[in-house]
Amino acid sequence: MQAFQRLTDKMHLITDLGAAAAVLGWDQETYMPDGAVAGRAEQLATLSSFIHQHTTNADTVAIVEEVKKELPLLTTRQQLVAQTFIRDHDRSLKLPSELVEEQARTASMAQDAWKRARSASDFTIFEPLLAKTVDLKRREAEIVGPAKHLYDNLLDSFEPGLTVDVITPIFDRLRTGTVALLSEITPRQQDVNDDVLYRSYNPDAQLASATRIIKTLGFDMNTGRVDLSAHPFCTSFGSTDVRLTTRIRENDLRSCLFGLIHEAGHGMYEQGIGNDLARTFSGQGASMGIHESQSLFWENVVARSEEFWNWAFPHLRDTFPEQLKDQDVRSFYRAINKMRPSLNRVESDELTYNLHIILRFEIERDLIAGTMEVRDIPKRWNEKMEEALGVVPANDAEGCLQDVHWSFGGLGYFPSYTLGKLYAAMEWNAMQVTMPDVRDRIANGDFAPILGWLREHVHSYGRTETPQEMIQRISGRPLTEVDFLTYVGAKARNVYGI
Amino acid sequence: MQAFQRLTDKMHLITDLGAAAAVLGWDQETYMPDGAVAGRAEQLATLSSFIHQHTTNADTVAIVEEVKKELPLLTTRQQLVAQTFIRDHDRSLKLPSELVEEQARTASMAQDAWKRARSASDFTIFEPLLAKTVDLKRREAEIVGPAKHLYDNLLDSFEPGLTVDVITPIFDRLRTGTVALLSEITPRQQDVNDDVLYRSYNPDAQLASATRIIKTLGFDMNTGRVDLSAHPFCTSFGSTDVRLTTRIRENDLRSCLFGLIHEAGHGMYEQGIGNDLARTFSGQGASMGIHESQSLFWENVVARSEEFWNWAFPHLRDTFPEQLKDQDVRSFYRAINKMRPSLNRVESDELTYNLHIILRFEIERDLIAGTMEVRDIPKRWNEKMEEALGVVPANDAEGCLQDVHWSFGGLGYFPSYTLGKLYAAMEWNAMQVTMPDVRDRIANGDFAPILGWLREHVHSYGRTETPQEMIQRISGRPLTEVDFLTYVGAKARNVYGI
Repeated sequence: MQAFQRLTDKMHLITDLGAAAAVLGWDQETYMPDGAVAGRAEQLATLSSFIHQHTTNADTVAIVEEVKKELPLLTTRQQLVAQTFIRDHDRSLKLPSELVEEQARTASMAQDAWKRARSASDFTIFEPLLAKTVDLKRREAEIVGPAKHLYDNLLDSFEPGLTVDVITPIFDRLRTGTVALLSEITPRQQDVNDDVLYRSYNPDAQLASATRIIKTLGFDMNTGRVDLSAHPFCTSFGSTDVRLTTRIRENDLRSCLFGLIHEAGHGMYEQGIGNDLARTFSGQGASMGIHESQSLFWENVVARSEEFWNWAFPHLRDTFPEQLKDQDVRSFYRAINKMRPSLNRVESDELTYNLHIILRFEIERDLIAGTMEVRDIPKRWNEKMEEALGVVPANDAEGCLQDVHWSFGGLGYFPSYTLGKLYAAMEWNAMQVTMPDVRDRIANGDFAPILGWLREHVHSYGRTETPQEMIQRISGRPLTEVDFLTYVGAKARNVYGI
Repeated sequence: MQAFQRLTDKMHLITDLGAAAAVLGWDQETYMPDGAVAGRAEQLATLSSFIHQHTTNADTVAIVEEVKKELPLLTTRQQLVAQTFIRDHDRSLKLPSELVEEQARTASMAQDAWKRARSASDFTIFEPLLAKTVDLKRREAEIVGPAKHLYDNLLDSFEPGLTVDVITPIFDRLRTGTVALLSEITPRQQDVNDDVLYRSYNPDAQLASATRIIKTLGFDMNTGRVDLSAHPFCTSFGSTDVRLTTRIRENDLRSCLFGLIHEAGHGMYEQGIGNDLARTFSGQGASMGIHESQSLFWENVVARSEEFWNWAFPHLRDTFPEQLKDQDVRSFYRAINKMRPSLNRVESDELTYNLHIILRFEIERDLIAGTMEVRDIPKRWNEKMEEALGVVPANDAEGCLQDVHWSFGGLGYFPSYTLGKLYAAMEWNAMQVTMPDVRDRIANGDFAPILGWLREHVHSYGRTETPQEMIQRISGRPLTEVDFLTYVGAKARNVYGI
């Protein structure tokens, strides 16, 4: 047990440094004065280098070797915690620091080039640095080890254990099902009017209303808070300090309301991680996809349900009586669930969103496999948009330059968004089995049993399981698109009166 | 020059960690949710241990040895930077980590005991832990090295180079002069009415008004900001990121207004430190006393002057027309400068404040010298209060338990407050020599030349001089109480019409 104790001490040090870096990152997005950018970058680079150093130095290597021998003596929970660390440590050890540094330097330049390219709506400005980014990610994937598809080694950073061979057929069936559903509702688009969302809503009242809702859902303000930032996010410095941010648009009711519920879904996950996992490498979400399943569970499954608005609509109408005077629960529910093809991922709906992700996944996968060139991205993007969504971007800015992810080297990240939707639907079906009256509870504003269920089946596990182990345990089945297609199909037919 | 480069790299690492710790400290006092206290303490402890480790490890010791050999090859500025680091490093090396850890543990318990003692107004609750604190500080002073008075080695942490033998006669004369001045104005106390300060002032308007003033004085909001906290402070994460806090009391106009100007004085100092000193151990104020001279310069010398209110009063009356309708510049100036003995250091005025400090200095000095026992503090405190100020606390809470400083082991700190007043008066006299029209400038709201003078003569030097070297350079004379007594005497006679 001595080696495990030393490993625990080491994890405490590293996670504390990580938490400090996260505080600095939060501050940068919320309150930091503009003139402080350069100094903050230096502080964050120093913390990163300390973290990398302490994860990989000779002392840590020696501890890991001893822990491996000691594993049989540990409790199951301790074994899981140790193995999570060992997995991260092995991956960090494999990556030469020159590669990591070159990736960081390239990311910094590529983010700048991406911003300029998007402003000018000219992909060629971004192309050389994206080509270099792809090249560096391919080198990273090669170094990590053998894999059927190189891309599997990138996916593994975000969704441990998931592979191209698992995702591809699921995404193919998901696209087919989505396109079929879209063709059902397209003739009825004019039946659903969502003008109400774009009226003028007082920003302070929006924030107060959204904050009241997330507190009722169960986000704990004693161990969390809400601030404003340009792009909404959730960050955690441990389960007792979870920060959400939101943005408010006076003429778009969705931005603050659903944005904050989404981030609170992430936040309640972080607040619910087992105390015994605090300051270890297992004291975080199981994967990006599982994390997204929590935010989407609350945002879409709960807060975009008709039952939810049975409870919430009267409160919202009290806040905005003038803007909502021509609305009832049903019309409001239909407005927030309008589904229609669009050019922009972030602004798309629950159904068409996945088509945006599948397109990005296929491009990433082919880039890393070497069967596609970076320079062909704009053409391929536009073809795929037309094929899947029937819309074509007028330029690169509203097409292949819309997302920041590739510029920071986040290849392998996009699939997590859709995986989150698939996991959330599987969780929802599993929840209804053990809690048959869950819809009534939502209609009564009684969210504690729902949060309790997620705490018990998802949150408390932290990162002691792979996402596939977790979803198998929860649902009794491996990852599938079936639950989501059933769920979204029922909602689409309800909304469009089919 | 190679060793100096390595020393610079090392200082960058350590100051970045220090800046990260400062961000976490700022966040704790401004926005951190209540439930996060324990986790934050762990993060800060980890950062502290990294900082101590990297300041004292074998690698750093080796670099310091090489830099010492290389000194003659360095520029003067580089030599000063290197010597500042070496001085801090030597002190850190001398202190055994067991002592440092025991001091940290004792401080944590003593702060808790102090809070309980103050609530109960019972010094005996605090006494055992204060006795231990004094004992540990005495051990620290003994370890640091030979000194005529052990207390000199504690003073040295806050005011490098200053000694009991220098301070004692200056403080004695300061007390004599202050008491004499008090006896002049006491018969005229009823002539100065300060009721205006305690009317009801809208908190938002107070903050907006104080913020406008510090921006006009020269605090740069592009590299700084203002937030609220229970106790006002200034903290810096480098000269490009300086945070001020203030508190607002609806029925006390002084709290936010003069509090924020005071902190902005600290903040402008930090913003003005030479860029070439960034991320080195010289990239901070010269000493606690010099830092305090900057905050007091703006708060008292500038913002409590009659000239300042010639400019500022019309603006303030626009903000609070009802509350200030019976006031003019002269009556307001007299109100904010009322000088009268009181029990509380923080709420005392420019003149009597120093009597509170001298009392604390003498007690600290005698405790460390071993000529006084901790248990005798309440009695000695009350005797000295009666002797110097003519008032006696009714209990320990309003007497010897009013300050937090001793509970965290800050013995040697109190003198800095009065030294700041003496330095500020010397700076003011030096400034008037090179800028004879400075009073007119203040009256016209033209503060840029004043800030420019302080930038040139104080700020840009950072911590490359001892405070005594600095004040000698600026004024051509060593530390003296004469300038302050002349300055405060003139003000007292003006205010009281003598």
